[in-house]
Amino acid sequence: MDQTVTSIDVPHQHVSFSEDLALECGTTLRGHTVAYRTYGRLNTDRSNAILVCHALTGDQYVAERHPVTGKPGWWDAVVGPGLPIDTDRFFVICPNVLGGCMGSTGPLTRRDDTGERWGTDFPPVTIRDMVRAQKCLIDHLGIRRLFAVVGGSMGGMQVLQWAALYPDAVFAAMPIASAAYHSAQNIAFHEVGRQAIFADPDWNGGRYWQAGRIPARGLAVARMCAHITYLSEEALTRKFGRRLQNAPKDPTEAISLFGEMFEVESYLRHQGSTFVQRFDANAYLTITRAMDYFDLAADYGGDLAAAFKGTRTRFLLASFTSDWLFPTSESRTVARALNRAGANVSFVEFPTDKGHDAFLLDEPDFHRAMAGFLKGCAMHAGLPPAGAPVGPRP
Amino acid sequence: MDQTVTSIDVPHQHVSFSEDLALECGTTLRGHTVAYRTYGRLNTDRSNAILVCHALTGDQYVAERHPVTGKPGWWDAVVGPGLPIDTDRFFVICPNVLGGCMGSTGPLTRRDDTGERWGTDFPPVTIRDMVRAQKCLIDHLGIRRLFAVVGGSMGGMQVLQWAALYPDAVFAAMPIASAAYHSAQNIAFHEVGRQAIFADPDWNGGRYWQAGRIPARGLAVARMCAHITYLSEEALTRKFGRRLQNAPKDPTEAISLFGEMFEVESYLRHQGSTFVQRFDANAYLTITRAMDYFDLAADYGGDLAAAFKGTRTRFLLASFTSDWLFPTSESRTVARALNRAGANVSFVEFPTDKGHDAFLLDEPDFHRAMAGFLKGCAMHAGLPPAGAPVGPRP
Repeated sequence: MDQTVTSIDVPHQHVSFSEDLALECGTTLRGHTVAYRTYGRLNTDRSNAILVCHALTGDQYVAERHPVTGKPGWWDAVVGPGLPIDTDRFFVICPNVLGGCMGSTGPLTRRDDTGERWGTDFPPVTIRDMVRAQKCLIDHLGIRRLFAVVGGSMGGMQVLQWAALYPDAVFAAMPIASAAYHSAQNIAFHEVGRQAIFADPDWNGGRYWQAGRIPARGLAVARMCAHITYLSEEALTRKFGRRLQNAPKDPTEAISLFGEMFEVESYLRHQGSTFVQRFDANAYLTITRAMDYFDLAADYGGDLAAAFKGTRTRFLLASFTSDWLFPTSESRTVARALNRAGANVSFVEFPTDKGHDAFLLDEPDFHRAMAGFLKGCAMHAGLPPAGAPVGPRP
Repeated sequence: MDQTVTSIDVPHQHVSFSEDLALECGTTLRGHTVAYRTYGRLNTDRSNAILVCHALTGDQYVAERHPVTGKPGWWDAVVGPGLPIDTDRFFVICPNVLGGCMGSTGPLTRRDDTGERWGTDFPPVTIRDMVRAQKCLIDHLGIRRLFAVVGGSMGGMQVLQWAALYPDAVFAAMPIASAAYHSAQNIAFHEVGRQAIFADPDWNGGRYWQAGRIPARGLAVARMCAHITYLSEEALTRKFGRRLQNAPKDPTEAISLFGEMFEVESYLRHQGSTFVQRFDANAYLTITRAMDYFDLAADYGGDLAAAFKGTRTRFLLASFTSDWLFPTSESRTVARALNRAGANVSFVEFPTDKGHDAFLLDEPDFHRAMAGFLKGCAMHAGLPPAGAPVGPRP
């Protein structure tokens, strides 16, 4: 864990805007950058664009090799040719969130005024600020209306915020494993992670890059703690149970418990140590805060339905039975508010033991539902079928 | 958080044994000390003793002012005159566990050979080792059979271990909010806490006392993380929701989210910072490990029922609906094994939103069940009623 902060600071495809971005906190960013990736082709009337919003520790590398980790894209089972989000038919855009660390303006960015990195002085941002930054990108690409906005977890918060803020710019919306506010328990887990980062000797008051070090141990602990919440007790039991690392394969051989490590411990440590190679601690603090601040109803006098009043957006809400971070009850709250607002909403809970992470994993029923929803919406939007000839068959 | 390790190293009532204590790990302790407290009076035939086993961060100060924190005893709503564990009738004994930091032999103890504290060199101990150390105390007090062994959480693990190891010495057993093994998820949460301690700059390879410092920040993070698991999402929402610390009382006054702290964060930080004033980091590591190692069935060829074969002990198992650390399903597993073993077992799940901590809190139904169970067992054991005259009323 001897990486320096600059090891994740690689070049990314991006667009920079010179216009001010006024943040909810009152600070105004003098210009900002949105790093993003696209997949598929935008059609001539620019009507086939799907915005994918990433989660807390996700980024824009949805369906390709990651430039820092070398790993496959985080949603390459979902986004691609012939996949549920079919890039033969749709033009997929994924921006790195404002406050992130993969090229969009965030704590790693150097300030225009001082040339120094923002670090801990980066202003607090909200989900709404993230969405407003993304809107700049969508405008820049000349897209008046997104065919769909899709995302899981914090990505789902952005989807809800898009639908509330720009209802005419969102034909279909798919908030997955998400909620309209962050719960007390979720805030509590985030706070544990933040305190772990603050407790790291290399934290250096947030100016760790000045010493050429990163608070790797604290950030790893934060990740380990968060990672448990992404899984389920069932999944952990199924994957690891009480098995020991390096236990003898021959069951008749005596197992010494002492000095051994449970497999689940080794797995968690691995999760922690690989995470710090690709994520900036100040970005982690900024984005966890943005999630904690999120409370969509609060912006509408406490009435979530008011956020969606008169919306014509079509919604598919998805939740997973074993997700205890964003449990089904929170998606149900959103579905009820949408119903009160008279919206066109479908809501499906998928049985799985994979916990919150299910939205990233191989869940065929979930994938079929996404594909079906997008197909139906495409029909309603009048999009031509994938690869269809323009005229009738001969 | 500038305490030194010695600030918790105060004198405690104790008994020292010169006999060897052979530990499961293979190490032998050359003598050991058990610190303990008692409440009520032992009757002449020594038949009214109840052993209370404490949880991970509990200690022997069950029903009196704590000598380090000055706070009331951790179970003073349960143990006392006229309370469910009635000290007018029963003689209550609570030892500090082996590996603890309130006077029993543990990492804080100075080694006979070097005069140095054990620290990280303290051998790994198990729940069975703890119980065997407690048996020395019970023998020392001249008690052949305990009327009851009672405990919650890790205390419940000790209760099960007592019943399995010394069936003839346990008339009644009450494992509360407990389990016969530690789950993968629970091991994972413990591991996060351990890694937080290791990451603290004052950890000093476990020899923190040599520098006169304690790894307070890491230990506080460990406590914060664990504390979330002791509560429930419902309890956190009810107690804190999304309320901000120092938010204006007048709801019409504008609330600035930024720079404020959610109440739940402030609460957790308080839990962390007070914990480090009363607990030793090496003891925390030792005891979390002991819990992780616990798998009672594994000692009996994988058959939990075999642990209780032929037992005449009467059992009351208690669980709480919102406890997700030791969920009802784990108590049910124990109840089924006891049934298979032909044991006398009652099992009650209590509805509450207070999570795992419910066993420590004001839960009238639970308290009534405890009192009723002890009363019934006392009748079967032939104990005289509380305060009863020896002869008939005049």
